[in-house]
Amino acid sequence: MKKLINKPEDVVADALTGVAAACPELRVDHQHRVIYRAEPKATGKVALVSGGGSGHEPMHGGFVGTGMLDAACCGEVFTSPTPDQMVEATTVVDRGAGVLHVVKNYTGDVMNFEMAGELAADSGVRVEAVVTDDDVAVEDSTWTAGRRGVGVTVLLEKIVGAAAEEGRDLDDVVALARRINAQGRSMGMALTSCTVPSAGKPTFDLPEDQMEMGVGIHGEPGRRRVPLAGAAEIAEQLVDPILADLDFQGGPSIVMLSGLGGTPLIELYLLYGEVSMLLEMAGVQVARTLVGNYITSLDMAGASVTVLKADDELLRLWDAPVKTAGLRWGL
Amino acid sequence: MKKLINKPEDVVADALTGVAAACPELRVDHQHRVIYRAEPKATGKVALVSGGGSGHEPMHGGFVGTGMLDAACCGEVFTSPTPDQMVEATTVVDRGAGVLHVVKNYTGDVMNFEMAGELAADSGVRVEAVVTDDDVAVEDSTWTAGRRGVGVTVLLEKIVGAAAEEGRDLDDVVALARRINAQGRSMGMALTSCTVPSAGKPTFDLPEDQMEMGVGIHGEPGRRRVPLAGAAEIAEQLVDPILADLDFQGGPSIVMLSGLGGTPLIELYLLYGEVSMLLEMAGVQVARTLVGNYITSLDMAGASVTVLKADDELLRLWDAPVKTAGLRWGL
Repeated sequence: MKKLINKPEDVVADALTGVAAACPELRVDHQHRVIYRAEPKATGKVALVSGGGSGHEPMHGGFVGTGMLDAACCGEVFTSPTPDQMVEATTVVDRGAGVLHVVKNYTGDVMNFEMAGELAADSGVRVEAVVTDDDVAVEDSTWTAGRRGVGVTVLLEKIVGAAAEEGRDLDDVVALARRINAQGRSMGMALTSCTVPSAGKPTFDLPEDQMEMGVGIHGEPGRRRVPLAGAAEIAEQLVDPILADLDFQGGPSIVMLSGLGGTPLIELYLLYGEVSMLLEMAGVQVARTLVGNYITSLDMAGASVTVLKADDELLRLWDAPVKTAGLRWGL
Repeated sequence: MKKLINKPEDVVADALTGVAAACPELRVDHQHRVIYRAEPKATGKVALVSGGGSGHEPMHGGFVGTGMLDAACCGEVFTSPTPDQMVEATTVVDRGAGVLHVVKNYTGDVMNFEMAGELAADSGVRVEAVVTDDDVAVEDSTWTAGRRGVGVTVLLEKIVGAAAEEGRDLDDVVALARRINAQGRSMGMALTSCTVPSAGKPTFDLPEDQMEMGVGIHGEPGRRRVPLAGAAEIAEQLVDPILADLDFQGGPSIVMLSGLGGTPLIELYLLYGEVSMLLEMAGVQVARTLVGNYITSLDMAGASVTVLKADDELLRLWDAPVKTAGLRWGL
């Protein structure tokens, strides 16, 4: 295993030390492994809290900041944060207007956020949750009942973050979050496995002439293992299942192509060229695009595509200023 | 070779198709392989043109936009663009105030930019060039006479881009660029080789228990091959030669930790934690930080550190708004 780390068991703690050093606009609670905005809180704003296993950076810690999340809870690599981390984050960021938990659909995350929501409610915080489940690859998986929550989580955190920043109330923000999840679909693929530091070896074997279509962000199996193909063919295998699952015609869409961590930008842009052509041919009107590393899987080589059916309101919120380590414009 | 590409010989052309599709704020001249800003030009502004071999993305195309470059010339992977590409870019972006060529010190780039500068001058454009040579790893190399130009190029393009945006004249801008190059130092290391698409196999062999200290961004040899070490030890081997080469005390510094393309963000932040600690212990006052993929080497796993001795003026220009695909804030 070749990684820029010290001891495998210290990876998350050490990475948080780096985040704290690199990002003065963030405050890191090392004890609870929670990342907060450093700037003073506005009262009356609905707070957004997310979190999950580490290894998907910049998600979620890189999305804490003005216009996006108020706090992110960092679990061990590919392991849900604990309810007490979530309760801590929730009670700290509550400004009296309630807290939205943004939860990717994985059994551990859902269970722990549910428990944390109940505990925080007991101490007087109004908490609602939205569970994202946008991955069209598989129904149920080794990590989930139902579909997995993946790329739409990034778009949701951006758009709903902007809505919260505008001062909308919790009911509004929850309804918006659910609408976004319902209107977004994703599909990913891997060229290689990732290597979890504590395991020290690749999570799965993928022969030199094969790729995994529909892979999950923890390296969990996808739809099928197929012969290695060119970018045009890969784009088709990513876009077709998305378009087969939801009708994206008749309005603008926001498209994200995210690398999985080990794939360089030149390949991501190249693949996006193919994705873009397929979407255009299918009559999807791409209004906004994001290409880069946004939801990753450690050092896995590969990419995922997310398409979100938008409208004028969602585009306006998308364009609103955001200032985070992982996504930043307009401030 | 596992990559998200079609034919190896089409990688640069196909990637530019993706850039054009993803970035409406850019205009891509596919014939000359030049990336321009799409917005109307301001007259009287000094124009900045850079370029080099592809495979280092987001450098340079990702740095075209308000507050940074006016155009970038894209060569084949790890191959200098041709003089005619550079002449085309230079004459198109000239607004009568002259053009600065930002050139990384590699023999091919330096020679071609020199020739392009002469040709553009013949057609009446005033051209100056700055050659970056900030890599402390080696004097001379397989690709250069003297030191290689690496990470400081990113910081220079940002800061000098802001100065040009303010309307400073060419002499001012050139002097600033040379000062930045003189005040910046870099050092990189690789855990793995990269794979050039047309070669189809890794550029060099690096055993599982070794790493290359001082590696170049084309996979050219560094100072020495050493046993694989932890992040704390790696940080020391990167920071020590930088601090030994220039005195960074007595003022603020800007620090960039760039991934080489195949290393995920969690490792980059972790390594930055170690780098930050060493700089602090050495009395370097880090005023601004950039952690992410900015100057890469295809899919190579590894990282480089750049430290730039700054002052109030450089920090102010650093903080000025920038809107590019690869670096963006404040607009």
